[in-house]
Amino acid sequence: MRLKLRNVFLVYFVVSSTGLLYALLQLGQQCGCTRQINPGNNIHRWETPHRRGGENMPVIYVVTPTHTRPHQRAELTRLSQTLLLVPALHWIVVEDSAQRTSLVSDLLAQSELQYTHLHVQTPPAMKLKDSDPNWLKPRGVEQRNEALHWLRENRSPKDHGVVYFADDDNTYSIKIFQEMRNTHKVSVWPVGLVGGLRYEGPLVTGGKVVSFHTAWKTHRPFPIDMAGFAVSLTLLLNHPKAQFDPNAERGFLESSLLGPLVTVGELEPKADNCTKIWVWHTRTEKPKLKQEELLEKQGKGSDPKILV
Amino acid sequence: MRLKLRNVFLVYFVVSSTGLLYALLQLGQQCGCTRQINPGNNIHRWETPHRRGGENMPVIYVVTPTHTRPHQRAELTRLSQTLLLVPALHWIVVEDSAQRTSLVSDLLAQSELQYTHLHVQTPPAMKLKDSDPNWLKPRGVEQRNEALHWLRENRSPKDHGVVYFADDDNTYSIKIFQEMRNTHKVSVWPVGLVGGLRYEGPLVTGGKVVSFHTAWKTHRPFPIDMAGFAVSLTLLLNHPKAQFDPNAERGFLESSLLGPLVTVGELEPKADNCTKIWVWHTRTEKPKLKQEELLEKQGKGSDPKILV
Repeated sequence: MRLKLRNVFLVYFVVSSTGLLYALLQLGQQCGCTRQINPGNNIHRWETPHRRGGENMPVIYVVTPTHTRPHQRAELTRLSQTLLLVPALHWIVVEDSAQRTSLVSDLLAQSELQYTHLHVQTPPAMKLKDSDPNWLKPRGVEQRNEALHWLRENRSPKDHGVVYFADDDNTYSIKIFQEMRNTHKVSVWPVGLVGGLRYEGPLVTGGKVVSFHTAWKTHRPFPIDMAGFAVSLTLLLNHPKAQFDPNAERGFLESSLLGPLVTVGELEPKADNCTKIWVWHTRTEKPKLKQEELLEKQGKGSDPKILV
Repeated sequence: MRLKLRNVFLVYFVVSSTGLLYALLQLGQQCGCTRQINPGNNIHRWETPHRRGGENMPVIYVVTPTHTRPHQRAELTRLSQTLLLVPALHWIVVEDSAQRTSLVSDLLAQSELQYTHLHVQTPPAMKLKDSDPNWLKPRGVEQRNEALHWLRENRSPKDHGVVYFADDDNTYSIKIFQEMRNTHKVSVWPVGLVGGLRYEGPLVTGGKVVSFHTAWKTHRPFPIDMAGFAVSLTLLLNHPKAQFDPNAERGFLESSLLGPLVTVGELEPKADNCTKIWVWHTRTEKPKLKQEELLEKQGKGSDPKILV
């Protein structure tokens, strides 16, 4: 009996210890999913205004010309949310208007971005009419130059920075901002869905830009879309007269800025030697609002107090 | 000695059994994050500290039908970056294709979002042709239903969640996700730039939806755009047959899902009683790629290895 009890005890001891050990080991394992790191507020953001890790980075100055239209708030909202994912970024928004509008002011104030809000009205003679095709006159020229003026007044050549001209309707992967961050003079990369092609962009041999993939006005000195390059802040400040020429022939606007700053051979190819597309020249359709008039005649138009 | 051994045995038995029981109970607990349920590589998880909070929030299941086109990667990139700012979100992307494409697979794998990647091909008879105006047939019907099927197979009515149908070309403020997060049955809000109006949306009196601001087919039971409502996961799972009707008359697709689920009086108005626009029915222009053919004839077409 003594012996039997001891045997039972021993068998139970071995079995239960094994079970317990197994259970404890399982408890030590991580769950079958990665855990979320931290409770906090609803909307994640990098620690604003200096988003995570951005303290020692060159600041990217994103220059966005914008003008009043039905989908302006949608476009600026979408772009501002993309920029929210990029550390060390300063958004310079320049309205084509006689004064700053409250729509843009309010949007910027709520954006949690570091920003500067400017405005300058395009002279009527230079202005694209609603009925004009959008390629007739370049848009945003005075506005981009106003941003250059602000940078020259408010920054010094010793400030490390990069300037990028980002229209409010294009699509930007956050990867393109990583690519442009370290720009010595002028960095370049391809742009998707532009110039009637799948993409336009520099052709690179031995790490140098040797020519360009483009189908349109191939004789342009810099056949590069506005979204396809970034310029060192220092370079811009050291050339205080460099700016966009409002009278440049169509397609030559980018060249009018870059010509005095850099040669083709000096361009710095990014995005894996210009083989990756991280920015697209998307265009948003003009919204059709013809029902609005009909409802207005019936006294049932959209509430003008509701901001779209 | 016999007595002592028995006592030791009994004490050990009680202690070890208690420990084993506790360990087994712990193993039965759910993880503190959304589980990976599905077999295969379909599901991805939170990976980065991007998102904060969210552990105890209802999960927002964002259902996005998508189809191959030149600007697909741009659109999905832009939307994925918006979703990256929203905690406790699970993106269900459903391709209209015979199999998952590598373009979408790669984009999702790099998105840092929690996602499920599905596909189902729209039957040829139901499919919109490239030459058709985009309003001729509803797009994404089979794909949204496939997502509903997946949710019914992989989630239980006890899971707290909200389902939102977000096409890949609209513009979403991150605020709309905060609004829909707590949805009892079906929550609603206005949508900008849709139906020929500045906005379409519910009209609210005394906290209840009493009618709708719309100019088109005003007799629709739920004259609400796809982007203008979210449905409780529990409600959808408790009505296992509720889905979009592929044969619904134009404009009645939303009503075909909502009709069996809710009455107009039960709709939960969000966005300050439906007075704030946080989502816009933007459309991206079809890119013009006519130069591509010309260059191809000269043997200078865009490099097909470069993904746009």
